Amino acid sequence: MSVYLDHAATTPMVPEAARVLADQLFRTGNPSSLHASGRAARRVVEESRERTAAALGARPSEVVWTAGGTEADNLAVKGLFWSRRAQDPSRRRILVSAAEHHAVLDPAFWMAEHAGAELVLLPVDADGVLVVDALRRELEAHGDQAALISVMWANNEVGALQPLDDVVALARRFGVPVHADAVQAVGQVPVDFAASGLDALTVSAHKLGGPGGVGALLARRGLDLTPVLHGGGQERGVRSGTLDAPLIASFGVAADLAVTGRAEHAARVGALRDDLVARVLAAVPGAVLRGPADTARRLPANAHFTFAGCEGDSLLYLLDSAGVEASTGSACQAGVPRPSHVLLAMGVDEDVARGALRFSLGRTSTAADVEALLTVLPGVVERARAAGLAGRGTAVPV
Amino acid sequence: MSVYLDHAATTPMVPEAARVLADQLFRTGNPSSLHASGRAARRVVEESRERTAAALGARPSEVVWTAGGTEADNLAVKGLFWSRRAQDPSRRRILVSAAEHHAVLDPAFWMAEHAGAELVLLPVDADGVLVVDALRRELEAHGDQAALISVMWANNEVGALQPLDDVVALARRFGVPVHADAVQAVGQVPVDFAASGLDALTVSAHKLGGPGGVGALLARRGLDLTPVLHGGGQERGVRSGTLDAPLIASFGVAADLAVTGRAEHAARVGALRDDLVARVLAAVPGAVLRGPADTARRLPANAHFTFAGCEGDSLLYLLDSAGVEASTGSACQAGVPRPSHVLLAMGVDEDVARGALRFSLGRTSTAADVEALLTVLPGVVERARAAGLAGRGTAVPV
Repeated sequence: MSVYLDHAATTPMVPEAARVLADQLFRTGNPSSLHASGRAARRVVEESRERTAAALGARPSEVVWTAGGTEADNLAVKGLFWSRRAQDPSRRRILVSAAEHHAVLDPAFWMAEHAGAELVLLPVDADGVLVVDALRRELEAHGDQAALISVMWANNEVGALQPLDDVVALARRFGVPVHADAVQAVGQVPVDFAASGLDALTVSAHKLGGPGGVGALLARRGLDLTPVLHGGGQERGVRSGTLDAPLIASFGVAADLAVTGRAEHAARVGALRDDLVARVLAAVPGAVLRGPADTARRLPANAHFTFAGCEGDSLLYLLDSAGVEASTGSACQAGVPRPSHVLLAMGVDEDVARGALRFSLGRTSTAADVEALLTVLPGVVERARAAGLAGRGTAVPV
Repeated sequence: MSVYLDHAATTPMVPEAARVLADQLFRTGNPSSLHASGRAARRVVEESRERTAAALGARPSEVVWTAGGTEADNLAVKGLFWSRRAQDPSRRRILVSAAEHHAVLDPAFWMAEHAGAELVLLPVDADGVLVVDALRRELEAHGDQAALISVMWANNEVGALQPLDDVVALARRFGVPVHADAVQAVGQVPVDFAASGLDALTVSAHKLGGPGGVGALLARRGLDLTPVLHGGGQERGVRSGTLDAPLIASFGVAADLAVTGRAEHAARVGALRDDLVARVLAAVPGAVLRGPADTARRLPANAHFTFAGCEGDSLLYLLDSAGVEASTGSACQAGVPRPSHVLLAMGVDEDVARGALRFSLGRTSTAADVEALLTVLPGVVERARAAGLAGRGTAVPV
């Protein structure tokens, strides 16, 4: 049985959410159907909407169900751009932090290439935190051309919490809507949509103990959003597609549990993570913690290091062979032999950035997992370095 | 326990598919992760891809997983338009039958309003079947401007099978890709992607005994498709978003069972449906079967009637109170007090079209269901007519 330290990629379902999903599978009814079976499915969907909204500080009417975080991010970036631009053709600039997840970055790039947007990549500092002054300068110079701002709640690779209060305050001055991808944040740090002042927020079920294939975009009441998926007109026309009562019910249970258990969970995994960080830094020569050193400024379940002279993929495979599962960064970009755009945006040297490993903890993580990691990591890094140096010698004959 | 005659809206999961889904819920692993858990999830996804492809006459590499039929239709219509137009700006015309599902129609309308497309609605005849001559004339006049054709395999309301062989033959002459929404067809009539000559085909899991929240677009090898959802680059960049191994595994099992059991299933529900049709026509004055009278030209599980002088919603609610669940047409448009665009395209008078009911059978349907329907339907229609006439007297004081 391997040691799973990749909970940020996906985390085991909480048993209560799995049970609700399994139970619901044996009921039939399309929530859009008007007969009794349809209305029963609709009730399940609406009860979960209320539960999910309550867990996240939103109104039920502000929850738009999607197939997951990527779809919610696409809906936010594209939907806000199209609707804002329809109202005011001069609002063409999409402002996103350079450390966003690809589910925000890639829609923004695409809109720039195909839909007349101008993409503004906002810099992050060496900890991976948005440089608020850069946003201020951008808005002061071009605020009347800004269509939207998208800055994540917490970075998925290095765990850095982002200064959303500052972002929202600035955005309000210039009348620009703000979206945040909170996929990694919910269940780890307090996330209250109303209190945040955000216009839109992305959440994904499978990152917080719910099932895959379902997520939501919270969209402030009155926010104009052009749909990305057109069709039957579900979700008040904002997101067409048959609603799936089992997945939605399970998501609601998981969101509720993630939020009610958050403080205790964060304290527990935070302590494990602190131990992991301290011991890795002590045991592995050349290990550098990436993201904020002040653990109050990063996700409690996140640890991220670079090991200079290594290839991340080598580290990952060697660890995996030794029974420890981790990630070089975002699972979504796994297999792509490129250093992380997040680390590069933080100013990490490209060669160093190649030797990145993210360890992310979750509900099932224990002190024994950290122990197991520390047993094998020093040797793994040593072997990866040897391989990296050998490889480099061949590839770059200086 | 009510009588469920709305299997076209959604149908109970087959136990084997539910079992696979429930089993998979207890495994963790993002199919994009490179460690052992990730690779195990990836294997589940790829095995299901092979199984689903085999069931549908496609190559595994031609399966693009989506969140369902609506997303697959959006990807086909928008993705083909954007990619075709990028190659040749003069290819702006989107050709769709006037009887398409809203998941095809609404993306096409949106592209016309917002993306420079010209929408060409191809007529259907009184049975709801595409008029092939109209397509021929359109292509002969403007074939070099056609970006794509989308004609469904079988109509979701009146069950009419469409002349896809003719469509594909014509489209080939003019080099125009063809997409078909086969959401209602798979499991009822033979669907072989390779043999069809289609370029793209939509399938949905929950319509064939699989779970909600998952579907697929089959896309011919080499077909250029612009993504609708951008992000982590899953599905070779065509459809980003974390793949969900449990839903995909369950879909594969359901697709396999739906196809291997198709002939027997079609014969059984076809006989039930024939009995239902004959008895409704005999028992209910003014009942008119819509869609082809020749049952070989319609889906075996589909029966569709208009009852002149009734409101469909009244019929639906009265039937529901009597324990029989049916639909006025597409569940996706339920609650919208408008006559069906399909019936209007067939030339049915608007007043008559308001009194529509679709009965759709499925795996769990029995002769007792038909019996139960016939017991209550004549009285329901009589009451709905009385209400309809009374309502009309008030609303239209001639």
